[in-house]
Amino acid sequence: MKLTIKRTSLLQELQTVQRAISSKTTIPILTGVKIVLADEGLYLTGSNADISIESFLTKEDEKAKMTIFKTGSIVLQARFLGEILRKLPEDIVTMEVLENNQVSIVSGKADFIVNGQDAENYPHLPVIDTKNQMEIPVHLLTKIINETGFAVSMHESRPILTGVHFILSEQKLLAVATDSHRLSQRIIPIEQMVENFDIVIPGKSLQELSRSFVNEEEQVEISIMENQVLFKTKNMYFYSRLLEGNYPDTNRLIPATFNTEVEFYGPKLLSAIERASLLSHEGRNNIVRLSISPDSVILYGNSPEIGKVEESLNYEHITGDTLDISFNPDYMKDALRAFGEMNITIKFISPIRPFTLEPTEADVNFVQLITPVRTN
Amino acid sequence: MKLTIKRTSLLQELQTVQRAISSKTTIPILTGVKIVLADEGLYLTGSNADISIESFLTKEDEKAKMTIFKTGSIVLQARFLGEILRKLPEDIVTMEVLENNQVSIVSGKADFIVNGQDAENYPHLPVIDTKNQMEIPVHLLTKIINETGFAVSMHESRPILTGVHFILSEQKLLAVATDSHRLSQRIIPIEQMVENFDIVIPGKSLQELSRSFVNEEEQVEISIMENQVLFKTKNMYFYSRLLEGNYPDTNRLIPATFNTEVEFYGPKLLSAIERASLLSHEGRNNIVRLSISPDSVILYGNSPEIGKVEESLNYEHITGDTLDISFNPDYMKDALRAFGEMNITIKFISPIRPFTLEPTEADVNFVQLITPVRTN
Repeated sequence: MKLTIKRTSLLQELQTVQRAISSKTTIPILTGVKIVLADEGLYLTGSNADISIESFLTKEDEKAKMTIFKTGSIVLQARFLGEILRKLPEDIVTMEVLENNQVSIVSGKADFIVNGQDAENYPHLPVIDTKNQMEIPVHLLTKIINETGFAVSMHESRPILTGVHFILSEQKLLAVATDSHRLSQRIIPIEQMVENFDIVIPGKSLQELSRSFVNEEEQVEISIMENQVLFKTKNMYFYSRLLEGNYPDTNRLIPATFNTEVEFYGPKLLSAIERASLLSHEGRNNIVRLSISPDSVILYGNSPEIGKVEESLNYEHITGDTLDISFNPDYMKDALRAFGEMNITIKFISPIRPFTLEPTEADVNFVQLITPVRTN
Repeated sequence: MKLTIKRTSLLQELQTVQRAISSKTTIPILTGVKIVLADEGLYLTGSNADISIESFLTKEDEKAKMTIFKTGSIVLQARFLGEILRKLPEDIVTMEVLENNQVSIVSGKADFIVNGQDAENYPHLPVIDTKNQMEIPVHLLTKIINETGFAVSMHESRPILTGVHFILSEQKLLAVATDSHRLSQRIIPIEQMVENFDIVIPGKSLQELSRSFVNEEEQVEISIMENQVLFKTKNMYFYSRLLEGNYPDTNRLIPATFNTEVEFYGPKLLSAIERASLLSHEGRNNIVRLSISPDSVILYGNSPEIGKVEESLNYEHITGDTLDISFNPDYMKDALRAFGEMNITIKFISPIRPFTLEPTEADVNFVQLITPVRTN
């Protein structure tokens, strides 16, 4: 293998696949990046136990200034290769595999000889059956991930809850996540004719996936197999394992009738919750209290050691019964951040029953659920 | 005490004194900021065992929009006050001390009541005798700190070496720091008639001091007492304790005659050292080797596990004997960064004797010393 290439282009490719590379793996070769130079261009692969990323740089890419002298392959220490590329003296780097898997990396007068490993020893990526595929825009997938991913459980006591449940049926894609204290569910229509599926993708994989996209305008093709899912864009293949087990039936959790409803402008409510939670974070019980009456909504935060805060909230609209309810402000902050800049309606049943948050404009099928805290 | 003030102005003051406030102090009141409202404006004070900072905001400052209703004082949790100020809904905040050292902080509809402490219980700052004073420009003091502070020892085994030694005599100010492996010494002329002094200021204090300056154009007045030094600008009093003990005589360490001299452009040499140290950092011995002959300078880095690097260096000028010398590249990097963008001359005696780095242009009195590593 021998090529010359612009070092920043190679570095960018490396950074993409590095998302999948951990320095703390028990399989030493996985701390490396697999580099395959083919007639059509350069493939890099990084992998860990959960995800694998393959990126492709075509030789047609003029910015990369790639010249292929000899095809071939090698595995190099990923972190180390990145550090070398960042510090090379010239714009162009020449890489050549020598004997015994040693690699020469030359740029200007700087001449590195680094030890690599045979690419044959690198684990093979799963072969994905191309039958079950759907396509959605990158920006839409990113949005769904942002709207649900934060609500997955961080605890391994119920591993299935550390993932987002995706269900395709009746030409609707439903994504839902819950850590059993709160829930976030988003539904979007899918017009393609695609085979139905029901899978749970690890929350961490989705987070890395959404960070790996470079072009919001692109389409991403999703292929599903028994225990793997592949997200495919023009320059990247992103594989994730799926979580095994039965995801709980969350549909029955979302209530349908309510006794109190309040409409807020989301960002204003978020700021007030942030202020109130300053104090609750200091105390032993991280809760704030909301007191709703026909003509006022008052938010209280309290810490015996530090002090207390009280704020009369701006709201758009109130209907229904008076209510005093306490909850974890962190759940409310996450929920409001996922809505962004829009009016939202919060619907309550009683101080001890979960309450829902939804966009006031009904054209977005997005609902979140938060369980209150009993204070007496 | 009661005032209204622009919250961002108060926050900026707080951030200045917060440099001296640690949350890990054994004296609980020192986690607080002392707030004193006087007829002329607002004083804030933060302190720990080593440094104390007092800042002053005059009521004449129009940007701060300060209105003083009632003078007085209080101590509030510094971190917590900062978080509140950052999140308040309106531009203006009203603070009022109520009964029992409680403080009301009101902005818009948000109403905080926080627990404070009596300012009488806050330790008093040292009283500095104003006899022994000198003035230098802030930018010059910052430069001296940057040129020497990095070379102080990080180990408490010889506490005196954790400080920078400042000596004023014969109208010259000498600053020197050494960790016994390397040394950095800067001398500047002082035209004022000032009483001579000989003090050691903790490196950490100097680092915080240089970060605390806001106006590079200002003068800073330095006042020295037996065990304290005060740096005074228009809006800030910065106190540091001094280190006690005898600083070693470093003057005799700097050699006067040499056998090999090489001139480099500093930033180019720095880049090459950074490349070579990529490999040496991976190995057990963090060293690089420089091989100087009449017509070439070659830099080598090596790690048995990872690989090796070799680079023929660009230089301006070589005189003297051929030489092979090994050293810790981190010391060289620190030294070159302190010089910045200029030509420097490195002067060697032998592979086992310390070598010096100096600006090639002799108008700056700045010398650094690095001890080589014996490799056989």
